Amino acid sequence: MKICVLPGDGIGVEITAQAVRVLEALGLSFEIEHALLGGCAVDATGDPYPEATQKLAQAADAVLLGAVGGPKWDGLPREQRPERGLLGIRKQLGLFANLRPAVLYPELSNASTLKPEVVSGLDILIVRELTGDIYFGQPRGIELRSIDGVQQRYGYNTMHYDEGEIRRIGRVAFEAARKRGKRLCSVDKMNVLETTQLWRDVMNELAPEYPEVALTHMLVDNCAMQLVRAPKQFDVIVTGNMFGDILSDEASMLTGSIGMLPSASLDANNKGLYEPSHGSAPDIAGKDLANPLATILSAAMMLRYTFALEEAAQRVETAVKKVLAQGYRTSDIYEPGTQKLGTREMGEAVLKNL
Amino acid sequence: MKICVLPGDGIGVEITAQAVRVLEALGLSFEIEHALLGGCAVDATGDPYPEATQKLAQAADAVLLGAVGGPKWDGLPREQRPERGLLGIRKQLGLFANLRPAVLYPELSNASTLKPEVVSGLDILIVRELTGDIYFGQPRGIELRSIDGVQQRYGYNTMHYDEGEIRRIGRVAFEAARKRGKRLCSVDKMNVLETTQLWRDVMNELAPEYPEVALTHMLVDNCAMQLVRAPKQFDVIVTGNMFGDILSDEASMLTGSIGMLPSASLDANNKGLYEPSHGSAPDIAGKDLANPLATILSAAMMLRYTFALEEAAQRVETAVKKVLAQGYRTSDIYEPGTQKLGTREMGEAVLKNL
Ligand SMILES: CC(C)[C@H](C(=O)O)[C@@H](O)C(=O)O
Ligand SMILES: CC(C)[C@H](C(=O)O)[C@@H](O)C(=O)O
Repeated sequence: MKICVLPGDGIGVEITAQAVRVLEALGLSFEIEHALLGGCAVDATGDPYPEATQKLAQAADAVLLGAVGGPKWDGLPREQRPERGLLGIRKQLGLFANLRPAVLYPELSNASTLKPEVVSGLDILIVRELTGDIYFGQPRGIELRSIDGVQQRYGYNTMHYDEGEIRRIGRVAFEAARKRGKRLCSVDKMNVLETTQLWRDVMNELAPEYPEVALTHMLVDNCAMQLVRAPKQFDVIVTGNMFGDILSDEASMLTGSIGMLPSASLDANNKGLYEPSHGSAPDIAGKDLANPLATILSAAMMLRYTFALEEAAQRVETAVKKVLAQGYRTSDIYEPGTQKLGTREMGEAVLKNL
Repeated sequence: MKICVLPGDGIGVEITAQAVRVLEALGLSFEIEHALLGGCAVDATGDPYPEATQKLAQAADAVLLGAVGGPKWDGLPREQRPERGLLGIRKQLGLFANLRPAVLYPELSNASTLKPEVVSGLDILIVRELTGDIYFGQPRGIELRSIDGVQQRYGYNTMHYDEGEIRRIGRVAFEAARKRGKRLCSVDKMNVLETTQLWRDVMNELAPEYPEVALTHMLVDNCAMQLVRAPKQFDVIVTGNMFGDILSDEASMLTGSIGMLPSASLDANNKGLYEPSHGSAPDIAGKDLANPLATILSAAMMLRYTFALEEAAQRVETAVKKVLAQGYRTSDIYEPGTQKLGTREMGEAVLKNL
């Protein structure tokens, strides 16, 4: 059971450290190695996804990632930007299935900007396709063209999906829905985009294989509205890479506590990359202020999906719930009447509850 | 002053009728003609944007649209779908600048699913580019291709912008911001899409021409989150056609009362198409239940932008505010303690307050 840990940038170092402590405390025999990804990798090697990291990541069964990026690297040319490292590892490892739960913990329901009756008990799973779509589509670029008789810069990108790509993410979503509330909402923009007309067609073709699951369709603009209007109508949402980027971030913010939300990105054989849904938060990096719980919960997803250690996964998740019930909070989720802990102390609180 | 009225489908007929009454009551000399667009046009002619409508719309100074679409036409081939009519008229008339206010009326602050302190006083203007981007980009389609050695359906679309297109929508947004809160947030996905890297570059190049306006940039996924987290941070948002579709719908739902939200789509000479932000609501069509206020407020935008009749525009807007203050509500915005009116009665209430 080989795990490659990529702390990345900003708070990444602190939060992965706590997740590693939790993994080690389980008494299972993980082989854990660390490597560089993102801005720190650019600083050290000039490459956001250096060869040494590629080797370790490819050899590992699972990758635990902190977060990448920060203003320090914003001025770099495209190929050297930290997020290239993230896109590179997703593509190279074939991590096409991104699972992003948006769950509101009862203890944290005040954190939401939405009214309690609208979000209490929220439990959505967004399944986002992660290695296709306009993210990786060719041709793309910025070039000079003569348009309306004038030499102009012209930027272009290509959105595309083939039916095989749609089918495999569709199956992941149907399977996930079958194990949950049995409702799957596929999101597209079929009234404008042919790519997503094919998306809808293929989802409809898969439906008969999953008779227990009720499949519905929603246009992306409507979904962005419905997430605000009545988010609890959703069980599992499946969508493409671009729409998934937008909707999964919107959905996670409904909880008001993105410091709590893990994610998994899986390949066809349950190899996975696990990372918190939040960013690298450079403003609080190194201050022992960051919330490590999303990363710890990402490690729990790793136990479940890559290593099929359901019991261990639940042990970690239960420990996190207990910590919340005991009133411990990092500053991002602090409320008067609870007890504020630093990153390290929060990791210890989870360890104590394991 | 020629106005072409396109009632469209569903509740479109009822709501435009009330807006026309308001326009006529102003005592100005409008020449008003009606034509077909959308599903009703398909039923009558086989074409969602028939030639007769094209002639009238081209000859008019402004178009007032109700709404198009409904389940009745969902099974039709792409070219005959009602929304083709909408996309067709936008493109043919060159209506590249879509202005979508998201305003929360104090009397309706309970309607929002967000906590009052998060949304009270909300007043955002979204400026969405409307005739470019992946909506109209070529090449596009669904075809058979051999991929990984298998014959597969393959769907594709092209996102693109040239600098001229970006500059002209950018100017509209900077001008709008200058007349409002002087803050402009440009939304893109420059870390992934070259098209939107050009978008950001051109916005930065325009900024020195508008020294009074503070320009910032935000990634689209972050914007989808920030609209939920702290929507009042925004004054004017400018973005492309696809992202604008999603974000403007999300922003309007923050108010909880999309029955109140108008929109304008302008060409380079202030010719415009004006329509409510909501849809055709086929479930309540013909029942005198629809809220005509968004359409009436769209007519007010027409007075302001196309006819430069600022005073008349404000007369209409003030009448709508008075109606709300008097406690009149259609059922979509009804609360105990207010008085429920039908579509027609609501139109009359506005007329009385003019
Ligand atoms: C950093 C960026 C390239 C990335 C994406 O758009 O996929 C991020 O927003 C995410 O969702 O993981
Ligand atoms: C009906 C559809 C084509 C249209 C769009 O996507 O532009 C609608 O959603 C809108 O925003 O006006």
